[in-house]
Parts: sequence; C-alpha cells; structure tokens
Amino acid sequence: MLEFKLQKTDGRTKARVGLIRTDHGTIRTPVFMPVGTRGSVKAVEQRELLEINAPIILGNTYHLYQRPGMDIMRNFGGLHRFMSWPRPILTDSGGFQILSLSGLRKLSDEGVEFRSHIDGSYHFFTPERIIEVERTIGSDIMMVLDECPPYPSEREYVAKSIELTHSWAMRCKEAFSSSAPYYSHNQFLFGIVQGETYLDLREKSARGLIEADFDGYAIGGLAVGEPAEEMYKVTDFVTGLLPMNKPRYLMGVGTPENLLEAVERGVDMFDCVLPTRNGRNSQVFTSFGKLNVRNAGFASDENPLDGECDCYTCKNFSRGYIRHLFSVNEILGLQLASLHNLRFFISLMERTRSAILNDRFTEFKNETLYQMNTNKKEEN
Amino acid sequence: MLEFKLQKTDGRTKARVGLIRTDHGTIRTPVFMPVGTRGSVKAVEQRELLEINAPIILGNTYHLYQRPGMDIMRNFGGLHRFMSWPRPILTDSGGFQILSLSGLRKLSDEGVEFRSHIDGSYHFFTPERIIEVERTIGSDIMMVLDECPPYPSEREYVAKSIELTHSWAMRCKEAFSSSAPYYSHNQFLFGIVQGETYLDLREKSARGLIEADFDGYAIGGLAVGEPAEEMYKVTDFVTGLLPMNKPRYLMGVGTPENLLEAVERGVDMFDCVLPTRNGRNSQVFTSFGKLNVRNAGFASDENPLDGECDCYTCKNFSRGYIRHLFSVNEILGLQLASLHNLRFFISLMERTRSAILNDRFTEFKNETLYQMNTNKKEEN
Repeated sequence: MLEFKLQKTDGRTKARVGLIRTDHGTIRTPVFMPVGTRGSVKAVEQRELLEINAPIILGNTYHLYQRPGMDIMRNFGGLHRFMSWPRPILTDSGGFQILSLSGLRKLSDEGVEFRSHIDGSYHFFTPERIIEVERTIGSDIMMVLDECPPYPSEREYVAKSIELTHSWAMRCKEAFSSSAPYYSHNQFLFGIVQGETYLDLREKSARGLIEADFDGYAIGGLAVGEPAEEMYKVTDFVTGLLPMNKPRYLMGVGTPENLLEAVERGVDMFDCVLPTRNGRNSQVFTSFGKLNVRNAGFASDENPLDGECDCYTCKNFSRGYIRHLFSVNEILGLQLASLHNLRFFISLMERTRSAILNDRFTEFKNETLYQMNTNKKEEN
Repeated sequence: MLEFKLQKTDGRTKARVGLIRTDHGTIRTPVFMPVGTRGSVKAVEQRELLEINAPIILGNTYHLYQRPGMDIMRNFGGLHRFMSWPRPILTDSGGFQILSLSGLRKLSDEGVEFRSHIDGSYHFFTPERIIEVERTIGSDIMMVLDECPPYPSEREYVAKSIELTHSWAMRCKEAFSSSAPYYSHNQFLFGIVQGETYLDLREKSARGLIEADFDGYAIGGLAVGEPAEEMYKVTDFVTGLLPMNKPRYLMGVGTPENLLEAVERGVDMFDCVLPTRNGRNSQVFTSFGKLNVRNAGFASDENPLDGECDCYTCKNFSRGYIRHLFSVNEILGLQLASLHNLRFFISLMERTRSAILNDRFTEFKNETLYQMNTNKKEEN
C-alpha cells in the first residue's frame, strides 16, 4: 500500500498538505507534475527538472508502448533507467490518448482495439495488458485503464461508460495484485473516477473504486471542454467522497488559477502540458499574469520574464533577448520559456504548500490570483 | 594591439600553441569556436557552453544587423550583455552571408547593396558601416568586410575580387583606427586573406594585409567546395606567409580531420556549424568516427555516444535513449547531440594543444585519425 502522510489540513477550506513516499523519493503535495509523454519533458533536460525541483514527472503508456516499445523498455530496465530520471514517475494508462489520437478504435467489455497513429498497426489493450505494460515501464504510480467520454456526452452514454470503466478498474486491480514489479522498486495503482458532470454517476464511480481500495484516486474526464465552474463543482463533489488518507489527482489540469481552485477543493496532484506547450509558443506565465514574449513591445525590455522567479532563465536573460530568440526561431527560446514556465508551476505549488502549513492558504490564493490579474493588459 | 603569446611551436610541423588575451578572457589556441549566428549557439544554453569549456563563440554581423537590429543591440550594451555571454565573441563581417543568402546584391568599389532575405528591404554595407556595426555589437574580435568568390571562379574574377577585398580591408582598418569601442572593453580587427586556390593571388592578398598590420589574419574563401587537398595546400601556403606573432584563423572549417590537418599547417583558430548542424540531424562525432544515432541498430544500445567523452550527454544518456528521442522528434535529442558534438570539437582542440605542448602532435594526430577511421562501418 502506498504510504501517504497527511501532514496538515487547512481549517477553512479542503486544502491539504501531504507526503507520498515512493522508492524513488518523497513527493510533497500539493504537487505539479511536468509531462514527459515520450520519455522527455519537451525541450527540458533531466538535470534541469531536478534543478527546478520537479518531484515527479509523467510518462504516457500509449506513446511509450508504441515507441520505443516494450522490448526496448524491458532491455533498459524500465523508464527510469532509459531516460536517466532518478525521481518518481507516474504513467497515464493511455485511455485518453486512444480516444483522442487513434483513428480507429473499437471498445468492448474485453478492452479497446485501436490503430496506431504512427504506423496504422492494430493493437488490443485490455486492463491486464495495460498493467503488464506499466509494469514494464516501471512507473512508481500506475493508472488504471479507463474510458474518458467526450464532453458533452449524453447521460445514458456516460452511465454505460462508467460501468465499463469500473469493470476495467477491477480487472486492473486484480492484475496488479496478482503480479509483481519487474525491477527493484515498488509500484502503486490509482483508480480513476469518471462520470462527466453527472454528480450521481461521479458518486457511483467513486464509491465503486473506494470499495476496491486503490493507492490513490484520480479525477478524470475534466478539463475536456466543460466550463471551469463545472470542473470546480465536480472536483469539490468528488473530493468530498474520497477517503482523506489517500492522495487525489486531478488529471490534465490546468492553469495556475485552476490549480489553486482545485487545491482549495482538496486536490493533491496535478499534471498539465500547459507550461511546456505554451512555452514553445512564446507564452509565459508570471506572477503578474501571462505574457506573449514574442510581442514587439518586449524588444528592448531588459527585465526578466518574472522578476520574482528563481529559474535559470529569469536569473540570466531578458525579455528582449528571449523575444529575439523567438523572432529568429532559435530553439533556445523555447528551451528557456519551457524551463521558466515549469518552474513557475512547481514554485506555485511549493508556495501553496507553505501557505497551507502557515494557515494562510486563502490569503495566499487571493493575493496570488489578484496579482496575476493586475497585469492582464500585458496579455494582448 | 591584440596580445598574442606564442607559447610553443612544434619542432616537426607548423603546429603551434598560443594565448590570445581579450578583456573577456584568454583564449588558448588552437581553438574551436562554436557558431552563434543570431546570438545563440543553436539548442545549447550559455551555461552549457561554459561547462564544455567553449573559450569564445561567433556571432554574425549580417544576421544580427537585421535582427534584433542595431538600435536594440546598442540599448542592451552590446551582444555580450544581450545574450549573457561573459567570454570573448568574434563577429564575421557578413560578407559571406550577403553572397549566399541575399537574393539581390550589387557590388561596387564603395560597398555592397543587398536585399534582406527576411523582409526584402534594401541595405548598403560599406567597410565603414561594417566597423560601426561591429562596434555596436561589441565583439572582441571583428572581421573586415570581404568578398568571398564562389568556387570555382575564373582567375580574372578572383584577381579583381582581391583588389576590392584589399581596398575594403584598408578602409575597415582606417575606420577601426579612427573610432573607439562603445563599451568598456577593447576590440580587435582581423584581416581576411582571399584569392581562392590561386597561390599568387593568395600571396598578393596576404602581403597587402600584413603590411597594414592587422591584429590577426583569417584565411577566407576555403571550405566552399574545393577538394580537401586544395584547402590544405592553400592553408599551408598562406600560413607560410603570415607573421608568426599573430593568430591565424581558418574560417568555416571544418571536420575533425580538417582541423588536425590545418593545425599541422599552422592554423590557430577555427569555426564551423558542423557540430550543431549535424547534431540537429542526429549525426554525432565520436572518437571512433561519426554515427547516425537515428539508425535502428542503436535502439537497444546502452553505451553513451562516445565512451571517451566527458559531456553531460555522454555521462548520463545512452545511444538507445537518444535514438528514441530522434525517432519521436523530441527536441531534447538535438539538444543532447549538439552539446556532445560541440564538446567533441572543443575537447579535440584541447587535446591537440596538450599534444603539441608535450612534443607529440604528430603521434596524437595519427592516432586520433586512425581511431576515427576504424569505425567507419558504423556510419552506415
């Protein structure tokens, strides 16, 4: 069983601080997890992830299954060794990618047949096969196979979908319990609560998983197009059902504001491609709001991206220089912007953690969001 | 006058070891200079250039003149501050880029009119203007404006061209002598010997420049398509004319083999895009020859790119992992390959320097080239 120590709960909100212990190190929550889909957090070196204090990163089962493939993964002794990453790794099961990337897919009770978006080859993922693949990758935290319905979906479709997701979760749990890690470290398994914005279906999904007693619980199927208020409502509802003594992970979320709102509603873990994807498009996150550093207005700006940031980019380079790098399509521009954005998200969670510990989460949240919004004009 | 200390000359060849002192630090020669055309060595961070011990980098006057432009360059106090690079910078004058990139150009005695390859705008570079631009960039070592004839060119064309290049060099010298640096460090000016493969024209070009007494001498117009033997012959001939007490710079050269052959012929300085450009195309240089790390044969290879290399890439990552990064188009692949290739070139010159100091340059050169050629099969 995964060791999760709940260190503190905020008196006024559901915000909380905890420690997740894995064989690759302790994760302090709340935590933002950079996304390294194909065994690399885009344009950022592994030593830089350590430098900006990334406690854990994500890998994606669907993508890694296709390339480099499981034979190579096994040869290298798993993803940690393959990519030289000493800290914990969480793997998404690939359910979401099968839905969004695969041209042809056929869902059945048994599993999902899909056609590779790379070479058109056919593959069949069952819950048992996914566990086998995640064992081969060797992630510290594995996710169950789930179906993530598109938003919006009819209630009837979602009701059927959560039955499938539940039965797959049970089979994943069974396959997990009756197998052992391939490498010399422990692995843990999280269930995924689905049900779209139908609260009664969310409840049904959550209760089924809780009964099966997973190492942690993810809230899936959000940040897929629904209004932010819906996302907060569902999150709040689901965390109210989940046991206090297990970590909660809100999948694929989100903006700095989303993160603070979800922490307030009792979420511990987040992942999102926003910092790296936006960074590659010259969009940077700062304490004073978002900037598009490519804008001509920054050409002579000698300030760092964010004067309050401690990252390599902000300690050494000006907005003017980074603007120039993007203007002339120098790769260094996206390296520096990605690094900064990741540090911004990680630091935001570090400061959130410290605010909760110091009994000032609400003040911190309000001040932080207020400051981020003062500078909205710069976004244009 | 630039301080160049000739520390040692090889007894058997023209190979030599020296020190070039600039206000941004001492450059130990022979030296390989990474190319940072637009104010960034592609896909490599400035701190990484320090880490791999790059003693000096290049910037390009033509490119920087266009973007970010000289107003911004002046605002930032020159290229060192703009790009946060504490060590010396050498700027090419842009003559070569005007020839190769500019669609429309009109050469006259006065200067060269060209159309920007970026926005189609017209510009006129005179020798005086180039000096002004290089003063604005603030490079430690400035190059004169020259015309670089395409290879092959008729003797008559080249004979006329070196007259133009000579008169431009004299005007650059005059403009240089009658102006002062804009920032708080000294700048120096190198002449460029042209004359293609016509040795008498090379001699005429060299003698004219030597008489004008430049801080150093470049050999231009090579590595533009002529056979390697021609390049070596011309290099050998020109270094035989140049004064011993000034640095010699072979522009745009080249492969590891080219570098060793040119050091043997008395060259001190080199620059080339090969390490970074090839790195971005998955071609890596190693002690045992070149590899295309994208090849399927490396998929399960746990070895580093080069077991003899001390760079971050080789100390932490396998060929198999880097091969994967290239296969899935992860930016990290070209970052790691570029970093390694640069370290390989810099280390090659460091080891060459040490071999000359230890009276074993010829042995070192032969051993190194022999070892690089043993593994030619891996190139396929």
